[in-house]
Amino acid sequence: MTQQGILIVLSGPSGTGKGTICKELLRSHPELHYSISATTRSPRQGEVDGINYWFMSHGEFQSMVAEDQLLEWAEVYGNYYGTPRRYVMELLEAGKDVILEIDTQGAMQVKHKFPEGIFIYIIPPSLDELAERIYKRGTETPDAIRKRLSNVTAELSCAHEYHYVVVNDEVPRAVHTVESIITAEKCRIERNLDLINKILRLVD
Amino acid sequence: MTQQGILIVLSGPSGTGKGTICKELLRSHPELHYSISATTRSPRQGEVDGINYWFMSHGEFQSMVAEDQLLEWAEVYGNYYGTPRRYVMELLEAGKDVILEIDTQGAMQVKHKFPEGIFIYIIPPSLDELAERIYKRGTETPDAIRKRLSNVTAELSCAHEYHYVVVNDEVPRAVHTVESIITAEKCRIERNLDLINKILRLVD
Repeated sequence: MTQQGILIVLSGPSGTGKGTICKELLRSHPELHYSISATTRSPRQGEVDGINYWFMSHGEFQSMVAEDQLLEWAEVYGNYYGTPRRYVMELLEAGKDVILEIDTQGAMQVKHKFPEGIFIYIIPPSLDELAERIYKRGTETPDAIRKRLSNVTAELSCAHEYHYVVVNDEVPRAVHTVESIITAEKCRIERNLDLINKILRLVD
Repeated sequence: MTQQGILIVLSGPSGTGKGTICKELLRSHPELHYSISATTRSPRQGEVDGINYWFMSHGEFQSMVAEDQLLEWAEVYGNYYGTPRRYVMELLEAGKDVILEIDTQGAMQVKHKFPEGIFIYIIPPSLDELAERIYKRGTETPDAIRKRLSNVTAELSCAHEYHYVVVNDEVPRAVHTVESIITAEKCRIERNLDLINKILRLVD
């Protein structure tokens, strides 16, 4: 019997570097699978259906919502984005580990629908550091940055919904920590009862 | 506030190589502390009190048992061995991680008295492999080996009392897995609430 894969949810406030950590993990672990989102927005040049996104119409997306086929979804500037449940489940049942990189609200939806996932919260070493990172991006006004930091405070207060917290002080170290969490989770006794039983049967 | 250290209990049937894994961990992680046992047996040449063992009289040992000062204890060939609670607790409270390498019965006593520990069960890849290892040691008769394997079956049936199971197929890999478990445990959200609160306070 194949051991079921693990759904690893990487989440955290915007600007904490979870995207970079996720990319690095996927680059160095080709055995990990990235959860592909569904979206109603039009493909940009070079984007391929089933690789970058599952592209679909508003009607198709609404049907998926109605039929509870999404682990989470959200509307962003008039377009819908979501995580198709079936794609993730098929990978997990085939014993593949799946990574989902997602904002806090989406992570909480996934937690509700699939609590068996491993929920990892990536945080910056400090809010000053986070402010600096966002500032350096140069894409937001000081007011927008202040608003974002205030959102982070709200988000941090639901940190206890996660299983792990990883401080992203240096990307390689944070990547190593997430790798360790995945390795450790694979050794959790509840995932290895079959193994124990198999050894026991050998001596019966 | 110092984050409390973690008590890591490495256990498993005799012959699974838990001693080798423990030594290797301590060698490459000088920040880990080995839990020193108390014993009533006489020091052998070169053994130092407080380094190899805490040597004590039967009377002293019995007082520790009576005052519940031992996390676990056992009698082996007329001598007593045990794990003094205070020494372990002082290290943990100072933020040090402590490793305890111990047989299954001892581990279950510790679990009862200190369930906050991390209980790791080291198992051989198969019972055949275990039989071979014990046989290669050349210290036991075939009958003794058969008895030991039958004990292993009994021990494996309480595997679900542990948090993690690590298959010792190759020592370096098993050591790496235990390291990963320690790293992951340090990130568990319940050990990091102070960190989250500290970040939150910075923005209030």
